[in-house]
Amino acid sequence: MKEAIQGKLIAASLGPGDAGLITRRAWEVMQSEALWTYPVRRKGGQSYALGIAERTGLSRPDDALALVFPMTHDIEVLSRAWARAAAQIVPVLQAGRDVMFLVEGDASTFSTFTYLARYVQNLDSSIAVEVIAGVPSYHAAAASASFPLAETDDTVAVVPAGYGLHVLDTLLPHFDTLVLLKVKPLLDSVIDWLAERDLLQDAVFMEKAGAPEERMIRDVASLKGEKVNYLSLILVRNPNRQRGEVIRGCKKKEV
Amino acid sequence: MKEAIQGKLIAASLGPGDAGLITRRAWEVMQSEALWTYPVRRKGGQSYALGIAERTGLSRPDDALALVFPMTHDIEVLSRAWARAAAQIVPVLQAGRDVMFLVEGDASTFSTFTYLARYVQNLDSSIAVEVIAGVPSYHAAAASASFPLAETDDTVAVVPAGYGLHVLDTLLPHFDTLVLLKVKPLLDSVIDWLAERDLLQDAVFMEKAGAPEERMIRDVASLKGEKVNYLSLILVRNPNRQRGEVIRGCKKKEV
Repeated sequence: MKEAIQGKLIAASLGPGDAGLITRRAWEVMQSEALWTYPVRRKGGQSYALGIAERTGLSRPDDALALVFPMTHDIEVLSRAWARAAAQIVPVLQAGRDVMFLVEGDASTFSTFTYLARYVQNLDSSIAVEVIAGVPSYHAAAASASFPLAETDDTVAVVPAGYGLHVLDTLLPHFDTLVLLKVKPLLDSVIDWLAERDLLQDAVFMEKAGAPEERMIRDVASLKGEKVNYLSLILVRNPNRQRGEVIRGCKKKEV
Repeated sequence: MKEAIQGKLIAASLGPGDAGLITRRAWEVMQSEALWTYPVRRKGGQSYALGIAERTGLSRPDDALALVFPMTHDIEVLSRAWARAAAQIVPVLQAGRDVMFLVEGDASTFSTFTYLARYVQNLDSSIAVEVIAGVPSYHAAAASASFPLAETDDTVAVVPAGYGLHVLDTLLPHFDTLVLLKVKPLLDSVIDWLAERDLLQDAVFMEKAGAPEERMIRDVASLKGEKVNYLSLILVRNPNRQRGEVIRGCKKKEV
């Protein structure tokens, strides 16, 4: 036993915004001695994840650490940010203290944690990582809207709207539910697309699901021309899903 | 104010099996005066959802109510079960007590709760329903396996394997991640399908994600011929995803 006891890097997924959707395990780590870290887009900026954590009634600990991840797709800028963040926390981990990274939503989904963990393990491969799963925003949206995401043998596609609506036309026949993320920049086009396919009455728009400012709009067409928040999504049920024969356990067939 | 105060029907999503993945809101309701109800497949049968709840250390309250939902796709049999369950709990709600329905995973996903709530509201449309979102099994599986379900602009398809592998061939070019649910009856065919597309090294098999018996197998091919549990899924990353040009906010284009 020559090795010192190292701290663990823990991703605490907080869910999309409602402090009630934080898991018991994440809540336990939040109240432990672990160092709090959280993402910000620039030095001194606000952190959505920290805001969720503070909604529990806990205050940001004095030694909590903001890690800067600029809002960019420039891989070089991002790589530098991940490397810098990893360099900030590895000494804490090596000194034996757990480090918690606060994540909005779920850490396996559209989160920077995956990259942070890679950079940390590149610096010290012996550091253990725990990912605490969380409630994804679209599941919280479905719960708020009493919108069944999937029943029995349904299929669900989760697609950032930015891929373009021609892709959605390809996918539509195969899915009972479409979850359209990041609809903000294309909202008017999405509304037209839904209208042309007679899907408006099967769609619901949700902004900041789970947050105190959550806004649900069932009359999606009424949003035409409106500027909506970046954290907006649309759930669509497809009543025209083409169903082939479902192959079940007891009547297994070659496919 | 002629109306009596009615109880609320609450779906408490418990996540896939780990008591740590129960949300704070579900945990609060579990400790309240609400009547516990939970699904069983036959009278006197075991309940997976109740098992998760008991893993917290709480015991099943003496007045907890098992609701029987047979394991069948026969819509008439199911309708009778939903109607019967609704008739059992509506008087409790009308007498002013909250009723909690324990759900494994997330209540909006492959859950019987949607139907139960419909039948309850058919009997008494004034009864309020609260759905507490939960961690879906495939997000817990991704966390356990350190498997990024989606990065940046990725797309995710959630598909019960029973639809047949020809459907997967249509979907594959459009998705970065495939979540194949209910793989048990088709496991060997899925393994062959992955092997033929050179995807075995990008797949991970997970049985009973989040439960104490969780089993993760990265060498998916080694499962050939094995009988696995019903609660089994396979996550697949697709390195060959075809990407069109992503349309972002500031350079919005007609599509």
